[in-house]
Amino acid sequence: MKDTFLKACQGFKTDYTPVWFMRQAGRYMKEYQKIRQKYDFLTMCKTPEIAAEVTLQPIKILGVDAAILFSDILVPLEAVGLKIEFIEDKGPKVYPNIRDEENLNLLKNIEIDSLDYVFKTIKILTKELEVPLIGFAASPFTLATYVIEGGTTKDFVNTKRFMFAQSEGFHKLMDFLTDATLNYLQEQVKAGVHALQIFDTWAGILSPFDYEVFCKPYVKRIINKLKSVPVIYFSSNTAGHLNHLKDLDADVLSIDWRIDIRDASLALKDQSLQGNLDPLTLLGTEEELFKRTEKILIDGMNAKSHIFNLGHGVNINTSVDKLKKLVDFIHEFSHKLRRI
Amino acid sequence: MKDTFLKACQGFKTDYTPVWFMRQAGRYMKEYQKIRQKYDFLTMCKTPEIAAEVTLQPIKILGVDAAILFSDILVPLEAVGLKIEFIEDKGPKVYPNIRDEENLNLLKNIEIDSLDYVFKTIKILTKELEVPLIGFAASPFTLATYVIEGGTTKDFVNTKRFMFAQSEGFHKLMDFLTDATLNYLQEQVKAGVHALQIFDTWAGILSPFDYEVFCKPYVKRIINKLKSVPVIYFSSNTAGHLNHLKDLDADVLSIDWRIDIRDASLALKDQSLQGNLDPLTLLGTEEELFKRTEKILIDGMNAKSHIFNLGHGVNINTSVDKLKKLVDFIHEFSHKLRRI
Repeated sequence: MKDTFLKACQGFKTDYTPVWFMRQAGRYMKEYQKIRQKYDFLTMCKTPEIAAEVTLQPIKILGVDAAILFSDILVPLEAVGLKIEFIEDKGPKVYPNIRDEENLNLLKNIEIDSLDYVFKTIKILTKELEVPLIGFAASPFTLATYVIEGGTTKDFVNTKRFMFAQSEGFHKLMDFLTDATLNYLQEQVKAGVHALQIFDTWAGILSPFDYEVFCKPYVKRIINKLKSVPVIYFSSNTAGHLNHLKDLDADVLSIDWRIDIRDASLALKDQSLQGNLDPLTLLGTEEELFKRTEKILIDGMNAKSHIFNLGHGVNINTSVDKLKKLVDFIHEFSHKLRRI
Repeated sequence: MKDTFLKACQGFKTDYTPVWFMRQAGRYMKEYQKIRQKYDFLTMCKTPEIAAEVTLQPIKILGVDAAILFSDILVPLEAVGLKIEFIEDKGPKVYPNIRDEENLNLLKNIEIDSLDYVFKTIKILTKELEVPLIGFAASPFTLATYVIEGGTTKDFVNTKRFMFAQSEGFHKLMDFLTDATLNYLQEQVKAGVHALQIFDTWAGILSPFDYEVFCKPYVKRIINKLKSVPVIYFSSNTAGHLNHLKDLDADVLSIDWRIDIRDASLALKDQSLQGNLDPLTLLGTEEELFKRTEKILIDGMNAKSHIFNLGHGVNINTSVDKLKKLVDFIHEFSHKLRRI
């Protein structure tokens, strides 16, 4: 198995900068669209053969250094008694919503067997893949925002009202989601994933103060229990939270494009970093794309180790050809960099 | 006139921390709702007597230290030939949209006289107010996102495609909007505003690298030409951009809640700061609200001078009573702080 990605996860300097992309399996790819025309999104997630096939597509087509399980951060919510729906172009829907302590009883202990399709997909993939497989889950806080809001919102009014008006109840919800998420991730490890990524997509809606109170302790609890595979912690919009990410003990911190990776490497000494190209750079000229990529690769040399990624998922308007060229460019340029 | 706010803008330490709120005139207030029932939003902006009355409401009711002109960042777009619409709960609409260089000819030089209602409102207010009046405009980049997208969007795909695919054309658009914005702000100064705030609501969608290329030079050009009144530069989601804000020469930098004001004051030495309470803290208990307010007031003492504000506009669900209590708390606590 090609292990450059895993070496970088473990903090070793690598011969070239490994790369994978968040949402690398997705609608921007015609091979994906072909399958998507026959099955809805959730069916694709729940059918191990299909989920595995879709996971494999970008590995073959793009030549990336790691695969990420095709699934969704919301699927474990079904296993705790909630309903989820994915409506094209409208974003996900979760219900019923839990917006106060009284409604916490709508949640039941996680039925981990009901997520067996995920573990089956992992087992198929680990046999077929020539690159490491990344499993994943949302952070408890990010998951909580969906449970509370029912989807993504502009201001997260219900989440914050719950948090600031009934903080004890909110902590109970976080406790519950932390246990469920940990269980889910541990089962992914048992099934064979080589690394894990925790998606904290909405951590950045919190002030650093509130991040310490309502979000970080729960991420820390999960990371501390996952010692057998490297853990990547991705958080979005958290340039102001860097000081608070230091002691999370994540093997890799994945950052979005709203901060220079050089600044992050200076603030987070001796930390492996992942990131951080603006995904929409891919909609422009190759000149602009490669200029920004070069800068990230050069600056990334300051980190303990560096895995190239976008600061967010691949945009649906992205050209597959351009993305493939980007992968080749990253491999070649970063290899040359190391020989200077 | 109560001049504590202006003194803080000029970098002087004040007897207490002055406070005003973005969107302090708004739908959370029943006095506003009463007028809003009779007139649509744009009519309110365009009728000097009404705009003045609505501007005055929060001064009387909350006891804040500054007034901000009741208007909208999009009104100058009508003066350059575009149409704007405000649909309740749907956000603003701007058209036709300019998404490439060819369509730049849809713009015409600003007809500053057509914005006379703004300058009339300012003239009424400066006679009636006992606190300073803040005029405002969007930054050229933030204005550009509306011109290009037609409203607010999740990913700003069209803005970034234009930017990265036709950077020269994008710079022409920025040039045009910079001249128009400067003209508009200069006329507000002539009409009598005591300070200006530039709203860069969407600066934070750019990487620091792209902020330097596509956004900052234009803000700088405006700030350099506005020397007769203090200029506050508000940018959202820019915790990772702090290093790049230093040399803007804004009298005050206004930050959102996604960074500790103490961290900002350390990064931006000898800089006056404004901010930075999460507006949704107001939806919780007074205990949580005052705890976070105290921290900001204490940390704000590290800045050259500090003006209290929210990190974003007042949320519609905010209780007027609680907001008034917050103003009183800020005045009393910050006064006590200075006597320790």
